[in-house]
This record gives sequence, C-alpha cells and structure tokens, in this order.
Amino acid sequence: MRLHPRTQAARESIFPKMSQLAARLQAVNLGQGFPSNPPPAFLLEAVRKALGRYDQYAPPAGLPLLREALAEEFGVEPENVVVTSGATEAIHVLLQSLVGPGDEVVVLEPFFDVYLPDAFLAGAEARLVRLELGEKGFRLDLFALEKAITPRTRLLLVNAPMNPTGLVFREEELRALATLARRHDLFLVSDEVYDELYFGQRPRRLREFAPERTFTVGSAGKRLEATGYRVGWIVGPKEFMPALAGMRQWTSFSAPSPLQAGVAEALRLARKEGFYEALREGYRKRRDLLLSGLRSMGLKAYEPEGTYFLMAELPGFDAFQLVEAARVALIPASAFYREDPPPGLFRFAFCKSEEEIFLALDRLAAVVNSPA
Amino acid sequence: MRLHPRTQAARESIFPKMSQLAARLQAVNLGQGFPSNPPPAFLLEAVRKALGRYDQYAPPAGLPLLREALAEEFGVEPENVVVTSGATEAIHVLLQSLVGPGDEVVVLEPFFDVYLPDAFLAGAEARLVRLELGEKGFRLDLFALEKAITPRTRLLLVNAPMNPTGLVFREEELRALATLARRHDLFLVSDEVYDELYFGQRPRRLREFAPERTFTVGSAGKRLEATGYRVGWIVGPKEFMPALAGMRQWTSFSAPSPLQAGVAEALRLARKEGFYEALREGYRKRRDLLLSGLRSMGLKAYEPEGTYFLMAELPGFDAFQLVEAARVALIPASAFYREDPPPGLFRFAFCKSEEEIFLALDRLAAVVNSPA
Repeated sequence: MRLHPRTQAARESIFPKMSQLAARLQAVNLGQGFPSNPPPAFLLEAVRKALGRYDQYAPPAGLPLLREALAEEFGVEPENVVVTSGATEAIHVLLQSLVGPGDEVVVLEPFFDVYLPDAFLAGAEARLVRLELGEKGFRLDLFALEKAITPRTRLLLVNAPMNPTGLVFREEELRALATLARRHDLFLVSDEVYDELYFGQRPRRLREFAPERTFTVGSAGKRLEATGYRVGWIVGPKEFMPALAGMRQWTSFSAPSPLQAGVAEALRLARKEGFYEALREGYRKRRDLLLSGLRSMGLKAYEPEGTYFLMAELPGFDAFQLVEAARVALIPASAFYREDPPPGLFRFAFCKSEEEIFLALDRLAAVVNSPA
Repeated sequence: MRLHPRTQAARESIFPKMSQLAARLQAVNLGQGFPSNPPPAFLLEAVRKALGRYDQYAPPAGLPLLREALAEEFGVEPENVVVTSGATEAIHVLLQSLVGPGDEVVVLEPFFDVYLPDAFLAGAEARLVRLELGEKGFRLDLFALEKAITPRTRLLLVNAPMNPTGLVFREEELRALATLARRHDLFLVSDEVYDELYFGQRPRRLREFAPERTFTVGSAGKRLEATGYRVGWIVGPKEFMPALAGMRQWTSFSAPSPLQAGVAEALRLARKEGFYEALREGYRKRRDLLLSGLRSMGLKAYEPEGTYFLMAELPGFDAFQLVEAARVALIPASAFYREDPPPGLFRFAFCKSEEEIFLALDRLAAVVNSPA
C-alpha cells in the first residue's frame, strides 16, 4: 500500500519546522511570518461576541455580513467576494479552478512556497521568472516576464506587496502586467495578503487595471495580526464567483463562522480606529531597527517597501546551523527558489517585538563576527 | 476566458441553498444537518479562554494539545492524528492523497455529497454500490460490494454511522469490509463524524479490524454541536501521516487555532460530564417524535440506528415545492444518489428543537392530507 505519487513532495515545510525548532532551542524566531503582538483587543472582543451566535455552518461563499464588509472595503458588491479558510485555501481553490494538465502558470521567483505545490496539484506547470537581484535589491524584468509566456500560459500569479522580497510594484508595472494579461488572454491572481503593509505611498491594486480577469487574494490573519484565524478571501469578477464558491465547499466547505463574524466587525473597526496606520508605523520602526542593525554588522540587507519581511545576506551560514549556534531562526532563500537560490541569502521576519529583534541582532553579531 | 472544465459541476450544493431558502420563506429547516441547540457552554467557555492565547498559525498537523486529546480518545499516539479544517477537508485531503487518474474508489450509495466531487477532483472514478432498500430499511449487500471491486480499485470509502440512511454497520459487516480490503489490498476511509450518535450499542470502529490501512475521519462540529467551527481530524497509520500533514498545509495550511485549543479542552470535558450520553438521549427522543409523527400520517419512515437523520417517503412531492407550499425544508434523495434516486424519498434532519419538529409535522400533515 502506497499513497498516490502526488504526495511524494508533501512534507511539512520549513516554516512550521523552523518554528518548532526555535521553540525547542529557545531561539528568537524571525522565521515564520506570524506576529509576536497579540491581535487587537477589538478583534478578540468581536469574536467573543460572535461565540454562541455564529456557531453553525456559514454558507460556502461566506457569511453575508463578512461578504458585505469586504465588498465595502474593495468597492465591489458582495457577489464579487468568496470567503475562504485563510489565503492559502484561496490560492488552492484558484489554481484548481483556473488551470489543469497542459496549462502553464507564470510565477515570479522568489515565490511564496504554496504556489508551486498548488500548481502541481492542479496538474499545471509553473514557469518561473526570476527577479533580478542588484545592489539596490530585487527588480522585475518585464521583458523576461513576457518571454516566459507561451501559448499554454493561462495564468500569471503575483504577490503584491511581495513576500519574501518586500517589493511593492509601481503603477506602471501593474499597468504593464494588466496589458500583458490582456494581450495573451491570461487570468491574473494577485496575492495581496500584505495589502495594508507598505512603507511608501498606498500601492494601487492590480485589479484596478484589469478587473475583468483579476482575482485578488486577501487575509484577515495578516491584516489583523491573527494568522491562526483562517479567514481569507477572493475578490474577483462576478460571473466566476459561484463556481469558486462551489469549488471551496469541496475543500473545507466553509470558513470558521465565529471568526468570520468577528472579522467582519473588526475590519470596520480597524478602518475607523486607524489601526492600519498604527500597524505600519510600528512595522516601519522595527524594519529600520533590523535593517540598520544588520548593516552595522557589515551585512548586505535589502530595504523592503512592504510586507513584514526583509532579505539579507549572511554568507557562509546555513539556517539549521544558525538556529543551533546563534539561536536565531531564519528562513533560507532556498524555501523561495526552485533551484540555485542566491547563496547566503535569508528571509528575516520583523513582525516580532523590538526586544526580540535586539536579541536576534546581538546573537547574530556574536556569530557573524567570530570566525566560522 | 473560461474557468478550467473541472469546475463545470461546481456550484453551491442543495444543502446551503435549501437553508437560505428556508430562512427566506420562514420554513422549518429539517434540511441541512446543523443543530438548533447552541453548543455546550463548556465549549464556548474553552474557546473564550483560548482567544488571546492561541491566535497564530498552528502546525499543519494540528496543535499538539488537540492531537494529544484525540490520541487519548482513540487509544493511539499523537503521531497517528492530523487535524483538518473540518471533516470535509479531511475527505478532500484523503482522496487527493490516496487516489489519482486511473484509480477507482468504491462508495456506498446513497452517499454524503462531497465524496463524488472529491474523487473527481483527484482524477479518480467512483464505483457506486447501492444499498438495498426493503421494508425494514437500508441494507448493505456484501456480495454486490465485492463485485464492484476491480484491479483498479484502490480505496473503499464508508460512512459509519451512515448519512443519510442512519445505518450502523454491525461487527460482522465491519469485519467483512476489513477482510475485503486486505484481500484486494485497498485503503479504507471510514467517515465517522457521527461516531457519538448511535441509538443501540456503541458501534465498533472499522479501524479496529484493519488499523494498518484505515483512515478514520471525525468532526468536532458534529460531536459538539458547532458545525461552524471547522475542526476535524484524520486518525490513521503513523507512516502515512506526515505526508497527509504536508498535503493539508497546501489546502488550508492549518485549522483555526483558538477553535482547536477550545475543542481540545471540550473533548475532555464532554467525556467527563457525560455530554454524549445526554446528546444521544435528546436525539433519541426527537427521532422517535419525528418517526411516530410521520408514521401516524401514514408515511413510510425508516428508523435510523445512528446520525441525526432519517429517510422517509412523501410520494409525489418535490423538495422545492414542499419548502414553498408546506414551509418545511427537506433534502431530496437525489442529493445522495448519482442517478435514479428512489422516488418520493427525503432526508429529514432531527437535530432541531422539539418545537420545530412538531411544527414541521403539523405543516406536512396539512399538505400530505390535502389532495396534491
């Protein structure tokens, strides 16, 4: 008896593995992207109120009150919204719904780790377009992107703001992506789970430039500092949403009802109370702290324009060696590249407390400055 | 631009559709299987306590404290358990992990509605074995079952206690299923979401007879009257569980953390406080109420030995006509059969209040006794 061959690559990824290792070794965990902050009190309170009132199945497309709150956020109608069990399920359902055997999906590299297995599970092939990494950081080459498109390409998948690079696409880049998609008749999936985490001007959304073909993925967990709540969403063209709701009822039927109800209220309160502004302010401070700390050790660190991640180089080190020796957990670039990751490159999460960031910098300084 | 053809049959199923219709028409909803009872206070309290403490990602395999609680329940080790976002995701992940194109899955008919689409999404073919429906109710024909097995069969999927028939398999039937599986080298998936809902002796579990090849699916939502909490599980042979955890991290990454933590505590309290005994007592009463009410109208109703469903005949009626005319929502047998459902057969959910059951009986009596 053997499992189906499609499970061959299925194993717990380095993200939870590194978190477990960090906990065991009492390492500072700048690996997996979950905040050290507790979720805001208004979210906890909203969920508490929902318990005992929203306990049974929600409709697969989502609780009406959450679809309405999201429609308001995105300036669309509730029929444009399908709620999922976290953004991960949104990606899974979109790949299952958009592509199959013989189809190609263009993905930017480095990529968030579920894109490739979810393309694989759908039977499609991922064509990777590697971002250039220069002195100033990561850059998308639009010519390379267009060259990767073939007659079999059906979908272009981007992450904006982009994990792990922290890149925020400029308006002219978004416009170019939309033009490319129209020219080659592609669907667009824009994973925007970090949509409220940017350090410059508010970025525009890809869907503004191609609403007829774009599916925007979002996450209450990332926005509201509660990655364990498993409430995500897809905003897309109305005519496709009933089929997506149908597909998601076959994966996990519906997202958790009391958390959906709590999130619906919390999304409104977050706007009203200026929560996202405060969030960005806090993350900007911690980003600068980490960035200047790494640079003062003589390390090359790339400034992110969004997300709560940054990439930096620790030449000659290995992530498993670092968590043991320095007691700092990081994610190696290999988690975000199919092959040949840039050597010595790591992702640092700064959604952690200032204390943790200081401690991590101290510990890294000790190993970086001692001969390997 | 078109979605992938695999979405062609993807639409919201009759279960949520009938619930929405029932709400709009103020009909008594004996359709979708969610309880009218609120969840027990000890579950609500346990979840309240978990908020603010279990807010970030759980490991894909589940929170350690929930895996331990389940290991205790099932007499296994935590490594035999993977937590999922409801039992629906458990079924999805198992079918993706066990079968693929060219493989066959044997499914008993009538079936719970996600089995067929999930087999289809995995690329496998479902071979149906229809239960015999006689005067005394539904019966599994083991010879018909063995005849359905071909060299391409990889998996036998059963639901025990069985929705929608209410059938509970006897020990000799479970033993025969295990023998068949061993003889033909099949995996077994036993969907036991109603494992605490039986009206006779405590049924044995299929895994007792073939632990090396059986995956048991369970649901906190069904056990604890909170179908919207999306915490399910798979208990299976240890060597296969890391791959299943890997697969489920690609569908929804992890189940909701505060609900996992609340369920872990509530599962222990449920045993300690005799919750399941009280649950069965309450459901037995409502089953008998519904059964005798339907029979006193001269209708044929089949007595269930488990679950909170029963099947009964309302010849000449249609579910959409009934919800409009009688303001009682039921699920027609066609939801559980691929083709040619027994005419006039409906599923009645009795996980509703006595008041609702009385009201439904009154309303049905009015239409049943008037000429159609």
